[in-house]
Amino acid sequence: MNTVKDYIKTHKERFLEELIQLLKIPSISADSAFEKDVLLTADVIKSSLEEAGCDRVEICDTPGYPIVYAEKIISNDLPTVLVYGHYDVQPPDPLELWTSPPFEPVIKPTEVHPEGAIFARGSCDDKGQMYMHVKAFEYMIKEDKLPCNVKFMIEGEEEVGSESLAWFVPRNREKLANDVILISDTGMIANDIPSITTGLRGLSYVEVEVTGPNRDLHSGLYGGAVANPINILTKMIASLHDENNYITIPGFYDNVENLSKEERAEMAKAPFSLEAYKEALDIDSVYGEKGYTTNERNSIRPTLDVNGIWGGYTGEGAKTVIASKAYAKISMRLVPNQDWEGITQLFKTHFEVIAPKGVKVKVTPHHGGQGYVTPINTIAYKAASKAYKQTFGKTPIPQRSGGSIPIVSLFEKELESKTILMGFGLNSDAIHSPNEHFGVWNYLKGIETIPWFYKYFTELKT
Amino acid sequence: MNTVKDYIKTHKERFLEELIQLLKIPSISADSAFEKDVLLTADVIKSSLEEAGCDRVEICDTPGYPIVYAEKIISNDLPTVLVYGHYDVQPPDPLELWTSPPFEPVIKPTEVHPEGAIFARGSCDDKGQMYMHVKAFEYMIKEDKLPCNVKFMIEGEEEVGSESLAWFVPRNREKLANDVILISDTGMIANDIPSITTGLRGLSYVEVEVTGPNRDLHSGLYGGAVANPINILTKMIASLHDENNYITIPGFYDNVENLSKEERAEMAKAPFSLEAYKEALDIDSVYGEKGYTTNERNSIRPTLDVNGIWGGYTGEGAKTVIASKAYAKISMRLVPNQDWEGITQLFKTHFEVIAPKGVKVKVTPHHGGQGYVTPINTIAYKAASKAYKQTFGKTPIPQRSGGSIPIVSLFEKELESKTILMGFGLNSDAIHSPNEHFGVWNYLKGIETIPWFYKYFTELKT
Repeated sequence: MNTVKDYIKTHKERFLEELIQLLKIPSISADSAFEKDVLLTADVIKSSLEEAGCDRVEICDTPGYPIVYAEKIISNDLPTVLVYGHYDVQPPDPLELWTSPPFEPVIKPTEVHPEGAIFARGSCDDKGQMYMHVKAFEYMIKEDKLPCNVKFMIEGEEEVGSESLAWFVPRNREKLANDVILISDTGMIANDIPSITTGLRGLSYVEVEVTGPNRDLHSGLYGGAVANPINILTKMIASLHDENNYITIPGFYDNVENLSKEERAEMAKAPFSLEAYKEALDIDSVYGEKGYTTNERNSIRPTLDVNGIWGGYTGEGAKTVIASKAYAKISMRLVPNQDWEGITQLFKTHFEVIAPKGVKVKVTPHHGGQGYVTPINTIAYKAASKAYKQTFGKTPIPQRSGGSIPIVSLFEKELESKTILMGFGLNSDAIHSPNEHFGVWNYLKGIETIPWFYKYFTELKT
Repeated sequence: MNTVKDYIKTHKERFLEELIQLLKIPSISADSAFEKDVLLTADVIKSSLEEAGCDRVEICDTPGYPIVYAEKIISNDLPTVLVYGHYDVQPPDPLELWTSPPFEPVIKPTEVHPEGAIFARGSCDDKGQMYMHVKAFEYMIKEDKLPCNVKFMIEGEEEVGSESLAWFVPRNREKLANDVILISDTGMIANDIPSITTGLRGLSYVEVEVTGPNRDLHSGLYGGAVANPINILTKMIASLHDENNYITIPGFYDNVENLSKEERAEMAKAPFSLEAYKEALDIDSVYGEKGYTTNERNSIRPTLDVNGIWGGYTGEGAKTVIASKAYAKISMRLVPNQDWEGITQLFKTHFEVIAPKGVKVKVTPHHGGQGYVTPINTIAYKAASKAYKQTFGKTPIPQRSGGSIPIVSLFEKELESKTILMGFGLNSDAIHSPNEHFGVWNYLKGIETIPWFYKYFTELKT
C-alpha cells in the first residue's frame, strides 16, 4: 500500500485547495445569522462524497441542521466502518485577535508546523480532520484498495450539542449499522509522539441569569442599598469552588471514577513538560484542583469553567450604573460515570439555593453529553495502533482527552458499537480560539494513515 | 413676584419645545463616536444663553469638551450667583429596554407624573434641570426681575469625571468668582415632599483586567488545568465584600465619618417606606451593609459596586472557551473625608495583592471625586429653603444624597464658595437607566422656584 504516499504526492495541491474552499464557508452553528452558510456547507460535503465515489449520498433532514449520509457497500460479508465528523464550526470571536480573517484560509509555517499550517476557523476542528476521511476514501476507491464497507455520517451541530444527531441516530439504527465508528475530532501529543484518545470528558453547559432590581439604577442613588446582580453573580460563581479548587455543588463528585495509583502512574509516563506548557500559554503558574497533576486535571477530573460573563456597562469610558441583570455561560466537563443530566440538575438546584434574597435566578441548560472511556484491547484499537506504527514508525500512546464528543456515548448506546478516536491535530492548533490552524503535514499524514486502519481492521475482523 | 407663574403659563409650550430640541442631540461624552453631537450641544447652549439675555457668552476650549460660560453683571455691589450644570449625558444602553428611543423625546403621563413626563436620555440628568436655570434667567431678564449678578458654567464631561472642568476652574478663578454656586443635578424626596441635598458621596471609578493564558483556549483541553480569568475575576470581586457586606480593602474605612446616634435619628425622620421602595424595584428584599438602614446605606456609607463585567463568549448559544482576558468596571461611592485618590490607590494595591498566581492583573483608574457635606445654617441654604416654601408651600427637608458631583469639592477648594443643591428630579426618574424621564410639573416648578432663590439670597446677603 505504498501507493497511498504516491497518490497523496500527486494530488496534494488539490487536497489542500478543496479543504480551503470548504473552510471559506462560515458554518457557525451557534449563530442563526449563518444558517445559509451552514446549509451550504452540507451541500458541499454531499458533492465531495459523491465525487469521491460513494454510491448513495443523502442530505437527511432533522429538526435542526441536516446530516450528510453517504455509503459504499461492497459486500455484506465484509465489516462496515462508520465515519463520523462535523461540518459546523465554533464562532470565531474575538475577531481582533486573528492575524488573518477566520474564513479566508492562508497557509503559514509555525514553529511546530515548519511545512505550513492552514489558518482558518474549522481547519482542525473538524472540517480538516473530517475531510481527511473523504480524501482517504477517494484514494481507496480510485486505486481499488477499499477492503470493507464504509458509511459516512457528517453532522452540522457538534459545536452546539448535537441535538439533531441524537434525534437522528435512534431513528436510523439499521441504516447506520456498523462494526466500528471512526472519528478524527481529537488530537495527538506531538507530530513525533502519536497517540490515540481513549477517554473523553462529558459536558454540562448552562446559562445563568441573575436579576436584581427591575431596571438599571443609578449607582449613587441606589448603590449599597440593593443587591447588585453583578456583585451577586460573582459571589455565587466564586462560591462554586473551595480554597482547594474542589467544586462545591453537593453530590457533584458522587459518581466520579477514582483511578488507581497504578493507572495514574501509567498516565504520568506520557511525555509532558510543565515548563513548556506554561511558556506556550505565557503563564507563571498552572492552577487547579489540589492533589492532581496538570494532565490529570485536564483529563480524568471534572471541572467547572465560566465560558462567558456579561452585565452592566461594557462600552468605552465609565457609566455609574447598577445593572438590572447579569449573565454567565458556565460549562462543566464531566468524567465517565457522571451523568450529565443529573449534574445539570444538581447545578440548577444548588445555584437556586445559594441565591441570596434580593435577586432572582434563572438557570437554562444549553446541552450536554456523557463522558466516555474506550478499552485498548479491541480489534479497532489494535488496527489503529498498527496503522500509526505503519505511517509514523512508532506505536501510539493511549491518552485520555479533556475534551468532549458527547455523541460517542450515544453511539455506544444506540448503535451498540465502539468508537475509535484517531485524531491528528495538536493542542497548540488553537481550536475554539483565534488563529485556529491545522498542519499541512498532519492533514496529509491523516489521509495516509486512515487506509491502513481500514486494511488492518478488515484483516483482524475477518 | 407672582408674575413668574404667569410668565411660565404664557411660555410653557416653548419652554418644553426648546428642551425637547436639546434632548434630541445624543451628547454622550463617554463614547467618542458622539463627539460631534457633544460639540453641537455646547453650541446650542451658547445660543440659548445669548437669547435668554446674557451679555457675554463664550465657548471656552479645554483639553477635552468645551465649557460654555456666560454672564450678566448688573452691579459690582450686588452678590453673584454661579450656576453650574452639564450638557453631556450618560450612554443610553441597554437600548432594547427603552419604550421609546432615548433621543426622540416624548411626553407621557406616569403614576408619579400624571401631568406628563419627558422621556429622553438627559431629560432629568442634567439637560432638563440645567435648562430650568436658563429659562428662569430668561424670565428675570425679560420681566426686569434679576436682583443680582449671574454667571453660567455649563460643562460637557460630568458623566465621565469632569477632568476638563478641573483643569478650567483653577485657571479662571477671577472670571468664576461668586458668592454661591447653584446646581440642579440632584433630586428631591417627592413632589409633595421637597428636599434640599446637603451631602454628596465621593467616587472612585476603576477598570480592571485579568489576563490568564495568552490566547483563548478550548475549555475541554485546558479546563481545570489553568487559571480561567473569568473564574478568577469573580473570586477576586466576591472577596471585596465580607459576609456582612463590609468592604475588605485594608484601610478603606479609616477616614469614614461616623455619624452620631442623634444625627442618624434625625436622618431616620425623613419619610420613607421600605415596602414601597421594594415594590418600585420589584425586589423581595433590600441588601447591604449590616447595621445600617437603606437610607443610610445609600447616603452616609461607602459602597463598592461592579458597574459592568465582560469576558469570554457572550453571543447566542454555547461556546466552550476559556477566555484569555476578563474585565470589570468597578466604582466606589465614598463619604466625606475619604480621599478618592487615596482610595483608588488602596483598591489598586489590594487588587494586585489578591491576584492568584497564574493570572496578571491591570487596574486602570477612570476618574473620581471627593464627597461633600454642606451646612444648613448658611445664607444660601436659608434662601433656598424660603424659595421652596414659597412655591411648594412646605419647608424642604435637608437630605444627604448617595450620588456624586465630584466637582463640588473642587469648587469649594478653588473658588472658596459653597454650593447649594436645588434638585427637582425624583429617584424614580430613572436617571442613568433606560426610560429616563423628567416630570413636566417638576421642570416648570424648578423654573418657578429659582427666581425666588435669587431674590431671597440677594436680600439676605446685602
